[in-house]
Amino acid sequence: MPYVNVKMLEGRSEDQKKALVEKVTDAVVETTGASKEKVVVFIEEMSKNHYAVAGKRLSDED
Amino acid sequence: MPYVNVKMLEGRSEDQKKALVEKVTDAVVETTGASKEKVVVFIEEMSKNHYAVAGKRLSDED
Amino acid sequence: MPYVNVKMLEGRSEDQKKALVEKVTDAVVETTGASKEKVVVFIEEMSKNHYAVAGKRLSDED
Amino acid sequence: MPYVNVKMLEGRSEDQKKALVEKVTDAVVETTGASKEKVVVFIEEMSKNHYAVAGKRLSDED
Amino acid sequence: MPYVNVKMLEGRSEDQKKALVEKVTDAVVETTGASKEKVVVFIEEMSKNHYAVAGKRLSDED
Amino acid sequence: MPYVNVKMLEGRSEDQKKALVEKVTDAVVETTGASKEKVVVFIEEMSKNHYAVAGKRLSDED
Repeated sequence: MPYVNVKMLEGRSEDQKKALVEKVTDAVVETTGASKEKVVVFIEEMSKNHYAVAGKRLSDED
Repeated sequence: MPYVNVKMLEGRSEDQKKALVEKVTDAVVETTGASKEKVVVFIEEMSKNHYAVAGKRLSDED
Repeated sequence: MPYVNVKMLEGRSEDQKKALVEKVTDAVVETTGASKEKVVVFIEEMSKNHYAVAGKRLSDED
Repeated sequence: MPYVNVKMLEGRSEDQKKALVEKVTDAVVETTGASKEKVVVFIEEMSKNHYAVAGKRLSDED
Repeated sequence: MPYVNVKMLEGRSEDQKKALVEKVTDAVVETTGASKEKVVVFIEEMSKNHYAVAGKRLSDED
Repeated sequence: MPYVNVKMLEGRSEDQKKALVEKVTDAVVETTGASKEKVVVFIEEMSKNHYAVAGKRLSDED
């Protein structure tokens, strides 16, 4: 606790994901006072055909 | 904003998903007054072995 | 099934919410072929101090 | 209703998942008074590179 | 890990909720082999005006 | 996009929440390359009687 979920488009590299969970965890620890060992981060990836803004999926854009 | 998540069994076609996000977005705009550009829709698919009703997974049904 | 979650800022009227679930359900039935009795809609409201874009909460905007 | 989501690392067998949804459903029925037919269980699997504790992904552990 | 979320209508007593998290945790431990200390359960309550089946909110039923 | 959800116990101050969304947003921008205006952060608070570890709610601890 806290539990952080990051939902984003697929395609980031493993290095980016590794850095993402490190930096987000640090940000949570610094601002909430939670102990680092208790911070959990989940990454959730979406594909372009499952994500739409303004009624249009990213996979349908020109 | 609003953010809409539609969780359903896998198997719909791309045409169905395309129509789904269009119509759901229109429904949200019409009823909430949100501007269309701000409506986000996510599609989340489940497989039959990860979904159970009454303690029985769909993949275990006869 | 399908299960739809609509996350939005608090403040819509009961009439708007009632219409929202009706229209969204119709949109899902029309486009996915699901039977109406199986469509579930959840509304999830956020307050302005729990929602941020570009690092700034809505409650902190001028 | 109730709707139960179980998020866990991938790797459990089909027999484990089958037993999981059965036992969790029974536990919910017994303690909440919900009728069994109304209890829904979703299983959501994570991979080790999408799950981090203390800023470190499971896939990055030695 | 595992992380279990139970979404249900508000109105259960504290004793019911206490029993719910105990029994669900036991069910998860028994069937997944996870150690008990690692099982996390969240309860998420809904009000009747934020939950709809077949396009109709529970708060709008006769 | 990305969409970040931070679930934590209630009780943090407004200043802590304000700093939390700022720092988390910066961490996401720095590591994923997303543009700042597209990063969304939600805060989701739990009460102690709705959160359990090892089958025991925080509200039931001595």
